[in-house]
Amino acid sequence: MGASATTTPELYAMNGGDGRFSYAKNSFLQGHSVNASKGKIGEAIAEKLDLKILLSTSKTIRIVDAGCSVGPNTFLAIQNIIESIERKYQAQYLNINEKPEFQVFFNDLTSNDFNTLFSSLPPNRQYFAAGVPGSFHGRLFPEGSIHFFYSSIALHILSKAPEEILDKNSPSWNKGRIHYINAPDEVVNAYATQYAKGIEIFLDARAKEMVSGGMAVMIFPANPTGIPYSQTFTGAMFELLKSSLLDLVKEVKISEAQVDSFNLPMYVPSLEEMMELVQKNGCFDIEKMELTSPGVHASMSNASSMGKAIVMHVRAGMERMLIQHFGSEIIDELFNRYAKKFEEFPHHVLPSKKVQLFVVLKRK
Amino acid sequence: MGASATTTPELYAMNGGDGRFSYAKNSFLQGHSVNASKGKIGEAIAEKLDLKILLSTSKTIRIVDAGCSVGPNTFLAIQNIIESIERKYQAQYLNINEKPEFQVFFNDLTSNDFNTLFSSLPPNRQYFAAGVPGSFHGRLFPEGSIHFFYSSIALHILSKAPEEILDKNSPSWNKGRIHYINAPDEVVNAYATQYAKGIEIFLDARAKEMVSGGMAVMIFPANPTGIPYSQTFTGAMFELLKSSLLDLVKEVKISEAQVDSFNLPMYVPSLEEMMELVQKNGCFDIEKMELTSPGVHASMSNASSMGKAIVMHVRAGMERMLIQHFGSEIIDELFNRYAKKFEEFPHHVLPSKKVQLFVVLKRK
Repeated sequence: MGASATTTPELYAMNGGDGRFSYAKNSFLQGHSVNASKGKIGEAIAEKLDLKILLSTSKTIRIVDAGCSVGPNTFLAIQNIIESIERKYQAQYLNINEKPEFQVFFNDLTSNDFNTLFSSLPPNRQYFAAGVPGSFHGRLFPEGSIHFFYSSIALHILSKAPEEILDKNSPSWNKGRIHYINAPDEVVNAYATQYAKGIEIFLDARAKEMVSGGMAVMIFPANPTGIPYSQTFTGAMFELLKSSLLDLVKEVKISEAQVDSFNLPMYVPSLEEMMELVQKNGCFDIEKMELTSPGVHASMSNASSMGKAIVMHVRAGMERMLIQHFGSEIIDELFNRYAKKFEEFPHHVLPSKKVQLFVVLKRK
Repeated sequence: MGASATTTPELYAMNGGDGRFSYAKNSFLQGHSVNASKGKIGEAIAEKLDLKILLSTSKTIRIVDAGCSVGPNTFLAIQNIIESIERKYQAQYLNINEKPEFQVFFNDLTSNDFNTLFSSLPPNRQYFAAGVPGSFHGRLFPEGSIHFFYSSIALHILSKAPEEILDKNSPSWNKGRIHYINAPDEVVNAYATQYAKGIEIFLDARAKEMVSGGMAVMIFPANPTGIPYSQTFTGAMFELLKSSLLDLVKEVKISEAQVDSFNLPMYVPSLEEMMELVQKNGCFDIEKMELTSPGVHASMSNASSMGKAIVMHVRAGMERMLIQHFGSEIIDELFNRYAKKFEEFPHHVLPSKKVQLFVVLKRK
């Protein structure tokens, strides 16, 4: 229970505070996902959430955002969810005097900057707020206490990179790479197995925590059917990061062994993989599972401004992990190189394809 | 709801982090209270808490520590409460297989250092943890959701100092003082009225949040019957602080007007005052209300080491508030003077008298 179930290293949390490289100022991609999925979430609630069932055992609707980081995206997403539930409430009940109360649990790793999160909570929010530190690869809440579970761009993060790819004597040694892109099958399989284990634990935990009839909406990077991962947006982002690190190896600023022993703890599944994992768990009805496009903001429709913004985005999300492994001395140079590579390969940067899964589950 | 009900300025939170002047390293007085009250809390739970009633509507016991600061005291207190409830559970049920789960809400002002709190949560805790930012002078939780409410050395803090004592044209102007000690009746009454208002709001909020049969245990500084406030431990602490500030006025390091406009947002009630406020609210049975001694650790039995430790304690608790009003330049000198005054008046420093209220309420 609690932290004892947590295995995720705490370095995977986003940059805190509100400085130049903070998540708070560089989370526009996640912001686009929030916007792009707003209508879909509203639809799912309107069509599939039965408030009569949920409110038969509780006067409070308890909502979780797992992997919330520090805002502001989480506040927009929660507001949309609550407004959608209130609309559904009116549609089902038409009794304004008995409106439910809402309690929102903002969850992220213990190393997340909850101080920044709390100080930016909307002052006029119509819900009771709580922060919950810990990994979603484990139990976070009491049994049968959660009515609505939400997670955006977080479920691709593994509790850790697979250990066997660090073994020099194994065919799955991931030499010269930081991920499974363009890697031998052994490496890809090690990642896929690690991911499947993590999702099994995740679904078991949510199945215990959620009430019968409760809804889980999850949005996360996915591998579009029929397109090799290396040619996807996420794949390209990681290949350019690898290439930037290998440049630093050539200049002897970091060692080859350092790159060999660094592996991104992330996996991008296909729709079919996720479908199979949910069915294997057996506790949830799949109300919706579809590939979607993340949506791109108008102000970033040209490759150059998009490239710059993406570099900041990757830095906010991965800087702590990279500093821990490679040291802080090389971090500015690494991201300068990374930015240049984006300029040289502008065809990589527009994530216009359907590279996200939008999943709606309902607890049986 | 939420932050909209919060009026407490956020500067009243303790020093965060784990540095020399942090609350984490200077909260021994509160720690003594935890130890001294451990047995009393266990008794109250054993004798007065009916788990059959609480568990008839919930499989989870929800516990709050209001004014938890950053630990470690809060973790010790919560552990004691949970162990006491588990003992009572066995005494009432004898069914180990159906043990309830515990969810603990750590509450303090939004400016509290929740990052430090979360990173020091006991790794093997037997409860689900959540942090809740906001003032207890307002609603913090959904209706009927809390089973056990605990607060230690926090209920003496006002949402703000009374405004009328800042009015130069009023008989309640608190010139040359920072509190109501040795002040005219008008000032004392302004503080008492402000306190009564705050406790009314506090009790209204807890009455809504707590389930019928739920228990509230509160420990806070109180005015021992028949002893003038100026001669109590808390009174002496504040008088020495005032005296230190007035020294700085004499040396023109701060202005007289700065002292005139600074008033500690704290009030120390008598047992009779608190009794009356609870009875007026009407939602709680008073199971116990008694004056107790805070308890003094053996290592601090001599006045000198106690005095030094108390200075650190006051600094951890009030530094942010003092810096905000007087600036950071004078803060080291202020506390050096304060420490010297404690050495000069060692008879003040031993809080051996019964200067705390131990209160057990039960929601009707």
